[in-house]
Amino acid sequence: MRMYDIIKKKRDGGELTTDEIKFFINGVTDGSIPDYQTSALCMAIYFKGMTVRETCDLTFAVRDSGDRLDFSEIDGIRVDKHSTGGVGDKTSLVVAPVVASFGVKVAKMSGRGLGHTGGTVDKLEAITGFRTTLSDADFIKQVNEIGFAIVGQSRQFAPADKKLYALRDVTATVDSMPLIAASIMGKKLAADDDCIVLDVKTGSGSFMKSVEDSKALARLMVDIGKNAGKKTVALITNMDRPLGYAIGNALEVIEAVQTLNGNGPEDFTEVCMTLAGYMLSLAGKGTVKECIKLAEGAIADGSALEKFKQTVKAQGGDVRLIEDVNNFTEPKYSHAVKSTQSGYICAVDTEAYGLASLALGAGRNTIEDKIDYGAGIILKRKTGDSVKAGEEIATLYANDKSKFAAAEKLLLSATRIQKDKPQDEPLVYCIVPDDDSDIDTDRHSV
Amino acid sequence: MRMYDIIKKKRDGGELTTDEIKFFINGVTDGSIPDYQTSALCMAIYFKGMTVRETCDLTFAVRDSGDRLDFSEIDGIRVDKHSTGGVGDKTSLVVAPVVASFGVKVAKMSGRGLGHTGGTVDKLEAITGFRTTLSDADFIKQVNEIGFAIVGQSRQFAPADKKLYALRDVTATVDSMPLIAASIMGKKLAADDDCIVLDVKTGSGSFMKSVEDSKALARLMVDIGKNAGKKTVALITNMDRPLGYAIGNALEVIEAVQTLNGNGPEDFTEVCMTLAGYMLSLAGKGTVKECIKLAEGAIADGSALEKFKQTVKAQGGDVRLIEDVNNFTEPKYSHAVKSTQSGYICAVDTEAYGLASLALGAGRNTIEDKIDYGAGIILKRKTGDSVKAGEEIATLYANDKSKFAAAEKLLLSATRIQKDKPQDEPLVYCIVPDDDSDIDTDRHSV
Repeated sequence: MRMYDIIKKKRDGGELTTDEIKFFINGVTDGSIPDYQTSALCMAIYFKGMTVRETCDLTFAVRDSGDRLDFSEIDGIRVDKHSTGGVGDKTSLVVAPVVASFGVKVAKMSGRGLGHTGGTVDKLEAITGFRTTLSDADFIKQVNEIGFAIVGQSRQFAPADKKLYALRDVTATVDSMPLIAASIMGKKLAADDDCIVLDVKTGSGSFMKSVEDSKALARLMVDIGKNAGKKTVALITNMDRPLGYAIGNALEVIEAVQTLNGNGPEDFTEVCMTLAGYMLSLAGKGTVKECIKLAEGAIADGSALEKFKQTVKAQGGDVRLIEDVNNFTEPKYSHAVKSTQSGYICAVDTEAYGLASLALGAGRNTIEDKIDYGAGIILKRKTGDSVKAGEEIATLYANDKSKFAAAEKLLLSATRIQKDKPQDEPLVYCIVPDDDSDIDTDRHSV
Repeated sequence: MRMYDIIKKKRDGGELTTDEIKFFINGVTDGSIPDYQTSALCMAIYFKGMTVRETCDLTFAVRDSGDRLDFSEIDGIRVDKHSTGGVGDKTSLVVAPVVASFGVKVAKMSGRGLGHTGGTVDKLEAITGFRTTLSDADFIKQVNEIGFAIVGQSRQFAPADKKLYALRDVTATVDSMPLIAASIMGKKLAADDDCIVLDVKTGSGSFMKSVEDSKALARLMVDIGKNAGKKTVALITNMDRPLGYAIGNALEVIEAVQTLNGNGPEDFTEVCMTLAGYMLSLAGKGTVKECIKLAEGAIADGSALEKFKQTVKAQGGDVRLIEDVNNFTEPKYSHAVKSTQSGYICAVDTEAYGLASLALGAGRNTIEDKIDYGAGIILKRKTGDSVKAGEEIATLYANDKSKFAAAEKLLLSATRIQKDKPQDEPLVYCIVPDDDSDIDTDRHSV
């Protein structure tokens, strides 16, 4: 088999065989295929696409390029949620304890943030003492005992994806549906879950800028999940605005705890309850409608908050911070960003909001950067709200006040104000279920 | 300027600026652009094409990536002919002396053969003593005194093309019209001619398999030539069969000398006279019709043969071989290839004929291979001829008789015989003139 022939076949619109795709990914992994051939193939795939069968083969080859987890010692159904990445997206901190409070297992392996999106592991590390590295045995023991454990990705998961992504990133071949799907699902499937709920973010703060593209990506990922033998469903959710009011690690933990206390922002709470509802429903706890009710009950009766405390305690975190979020150390400096115009906030560039938070020190430009856990943004006004010139639209927090200027500039230029109140946009656009599933999607038709 | 943005722009169907194209080719030349970005751009160009303007800029950037010749010390009009490469194509050996016999200057820089196509320089080295390396001064002196000189490419012409081609060759991006045109013309324009006649070969033995593709490539190359300030015309000629009867270095020189003596094969003579006619016409010697007559006259009165002898002598070659081709040393072994069927030869795979000659030792698989100058093929039957089972269709020659078996097999399987006589195909399909030129193309309408 020759890589040349594989490139030519795809260039001419052919369908690659399973063996050809394995040959390609094996060669990427072991370095026997030179980068210039890989990038040429990625560009040919960009133009000619891949069938679902090819995309599944690519995903499985990516998954098999490195370590795979074995969750067979976990008792019960394992459910995971995967978000394609957003700004202010602290849903995992809420949905995992909600779901775990019903005995459904969440064995979560999570990434760190890079660029404008935050990572769940970083957020948790804002809790003093929280350990995001556990041995396999401790991890599985905690999942079995508490129902929820979360660690950073320490292993060699899907190394082929790492290499491919690095190359796609510099050759303008990132925006290819099959390549995106194989990258996300190749990593996800290296874990050993029974059910996967995908949260495909749409809009200015995400990968996919249009609902149509998001649906297509979601459909592909659901098909891949199904082909891998997982119960899979995708929710297309709105990332044209940040989720909730908090952006930044400690700030987002605080907002998550408020939500677990029943005092969270409306939009964030709704997305969390919907995601948790689908997770519970996939795990066999009832219809989606019933499961959303269950989720709301776990907030109301405090059982989800209790589950979160147990997890924090088990992983060495300081539970007093969860018991009273006023115990979080306040950042040294804060700065009010005031509107220069009067009117309604009609649109925001969510990605720029993420970059403003990054500029305050809440994120990383490179994987080596240190994070200021207290830094971030609390929004005072969101899309649809009215504002007068001189009124505060956001408060910035940082331990280095020299960082406010750049962040303020970013935030202001990313906020569009006009005279008329904009139309409301849905938080969840639609649900993309597995074809054969009997999951009810009545709240959000596809 | 970033290569990433250039790739993305082309990927999205944009037109690259002159500066972007220069940045790309400079980066290829000095190695600052990694191969994986170059191959991704080549694949994007494969799919999205280039405008004539972009292709000209690419060509000029390739031309300017290395040395350029200065022919200003040559008196008179400099004309060159460039073939896209064929099998049994010894036209340069005939047209250059014909044209030079009228005082038009042919300062020829020629390549060596690789793969199934032969190189003119290799053919001339079959003449004992012939030197294909001359100093610049000697080269120009000979062109001024005799009108024709030919040397191998010793300089760093268009090094960007060398790198680009090597990469395209392994990434399935060779078959792109703008990339092919820029590669051919980038090298050609490094020389300093006034007029260029392009011989675009079409069919089984060439780059372009269809007349339509050949026309498109010819049109592009003529436009490039015009934009570079050269009088340019292209002839689309038939390479669905070898030209003449001889394939192999000494064998082709012998056939060229026979043609200069007026005893050449009809097809080969016709193509030579047509090419020479256009070269002379571009150089201002009259209409094409008049110039073809002139060319025929130069054969009839022996002046072209005399010019060839002068050139051979000036470059140290043994003129006795030209005076009497029987003085060429015969190869040690010959082998008759006999038809296994009766009927008409209806089609041949010209490229396979070239590969058969290569298998006999007449060519090179790699640039380091040694050539057996005597080796090759004399065809006894060509497309359109009738043949009976057991009759000879070709004689193979080699100094190593172990090579006959493979060559015979190739030749036989490349020759298709059927009951009915096939239709005659033209030798010259059409002429592609420069839009503004007043050259007459009445013999072959476009």
